[in-house]
Amino acid sequence: MMTSQEVPFEAQLEARAQIIEALLRRLLDERLLPGEIARPQRLLAAMRHGVLNGGKRLRPFLVLESAALFDADPEAALRVATALECVHCYSLIHDDLPAMDDDDLRRGQPTVHRAFDEASAILAGDSLLTYAFDIIADEATAVPAGRKLALVLGLARAAGPGGMAGGQALDLEAERTAPDEGGIIRLQAMKTGALIRYACEAGAILADAPQGDRERLAEFGSAIGLAFQLADDLLDLTADTETMGKATGKDAAAGKATLASLNGVDWTRAQLRGLVAQAHALLEPYGERAALLKQAASFVAERTK
Amino acid sequence: MMTSQEVPFEAQLEARAQIIEALLRRLLDERLLPGEIARPQRLLAAMRHGVLNGGKRLRPFLVLESAALFDADPEAALRVATALECVHCYSLIHDDLPAMDDDDLRRGQPTVHRAFDEASAILAGDSLLTYAFDIIADEATAVPAGRKLALVLGLARAAGPGGMAGGQALDLEAERTAPDEGGIIRLQAMKTGALIRYACEAGAILADAPQGDRERLAEFGSAIGLAFQLADDLLDLTADTETMGKATGKDAAAGKATLASLNGVDWTRAQLRGLVAQAHALLEPYGERAALLKQAASFVAERTK
Repeated sequence: MMTSQEVPFEAQLEARAQIIEALLRRLLDERLLPGEIARPQRLLAAMRHGVLNGGKRLRPFLVLESAALFDADPEAALRVATALECVHCYSLIHDDLPAMDDDDLRRGQPTVHRAFDEASAILAGDSLLTYAFDIIADEATAVPAGRKLALVLGLARAAGPGGMAGGQALDLEAERTAPDEGGIIRLQAMKTGALIRYACEAGAILADAPQGDRERLAEFGSAIGLAFQLADDLLDLTADTETMGKATGKDAAAGKATLASLNGVDWTRAQLRGLVAQAHALLEPYGERAALLKQAASFVAERTK
Repeated sequence: MMTSQEVPFEAQLEARAQIIEALLRRLLDERLLPGEIARPQRLLAAMRHGVLNGGKRLRPFLVLESAALFDADPEAALRVATALECVHCYSLIHDDLPAMDDDDLRRGQPTVHRAFDEASAILAGDSLLTYAFDIIADEATAVPAGRKLALVLGLARAAGPGGMAGGQALDLEAERTAPDEGGIIRLQAMKTGALIRYACEAGAILADAPQGDRERLAEFGSAIGLAFQLADDLLDLTADTETMGKATGKDAAAGKATLASLNGVDWTRAQLRGLVAQAHALLEPYGERAALLKQAASFVAERTK
């Protein structure tokens, strides 16, 4: 049997993605709703289209691995991980809408409003966001009430107006307001950083780990959240649509500055190396147990699609 | 001093609306977000526009009065009431969008996407929905963790794909699917009923009232939820745009059948009387303490705008 160090990281990620996908499928199938009510079939199909799309499931992976680091209950971690993925998928569905980023493709497939219609896409996003809180609060998530509440609160803060939704609003305004480098860093920490930060922190919350560990994991999440965005900016500058399965060069076309476009490819690559080093240093206290999370940091920074 | 029976119901409702409005204003002002982050000003303004609009605050009223019935902590009830109103306002903002009901006016004012833009309206709705869970889970809501979780779960179920969002999806499909009378009742129980039912149940949850009381209040909420919708249908048939501050006659124009249009004005008025009697009977065990909630049932059924 191979140890975790010998199995390539992408295979480890894929193995967990399959487990997450199976639970997402179960949570989004017919059993989502009790038997006696009318079934909004089109809405349920739109929700499934927006979620069951072969995503990498990076955020759920981070929940599972940060939970494993502190010996949290794996079943509970799995449910929190799927809740987080529902929130991520809601944000993609709404971001893709004509009034927002107006994207027709996502992972090479039609976006939800293209495959269905705008109303279904809006409601599918709304429903996934709401359902995420249901999944966490449900009694099937076997975690003491106090921790569950901390998970609910953390998710609401990461996704709300001071987190992801606020960051998306700032990003839409960025064409007009032309934020400086500090402004771009702050908006990205909200738009993409907050949910990744929460994914890493959630494992520590699940296990009721000491506050210091909780903060350390959150900081690790912040570092890889920023790395994730820088890698994305870099790909937007250098990759083509075919590789990405979605439109690229959009930031430049929209006249939107990114940290990568402002500072160039070499600077961006150097920043990415620095963030990976910082992320690895944060996990030093956990030794070999944190090996996979360390690989995740490298993977995020070096990804080519 | 006048007793509650002597003060007209509308004045009682208005008095509580002012208290709710003051807390909503406080929760949605600059202090919503911590000091160090970038402020999505346009998003925050859109959220305020969608919430601070002089609404009747019927759902928060129901939370406050059902909480008072069981001697729940009034401050905690007030916070849960504002959270529920944030969810109600999110649903109005999204329902008004061009891709949904396409309304330009709400309470005589431009809807959020008209006063701002579609992207801001989508994100303001998303943010209000998310913020509602933040308000409940926040430590400032002084309720034991187990009850808070029950409140979170109840809200998620009432607003999600098996509740309000699912009902709105079914309503949008109704032009095509032409549901029968039973189908219309089920979709309305989800679309408008679920949140009103939850508003009444929330007070019993807040006070950790026995399961029987919780179910009784939920049933009361279902009765007035259906009455609310029937009164709305009746107004859509009979009132004009000026009285309502929003477009009327829309159901007929959209070729959408309602219970009132299928069965006529006299049948609808008889149904409303029956629902009020049922709602009053459910509250009999609570005697005089339930006087205001009984008046609320009559008010909902008899409202003229």
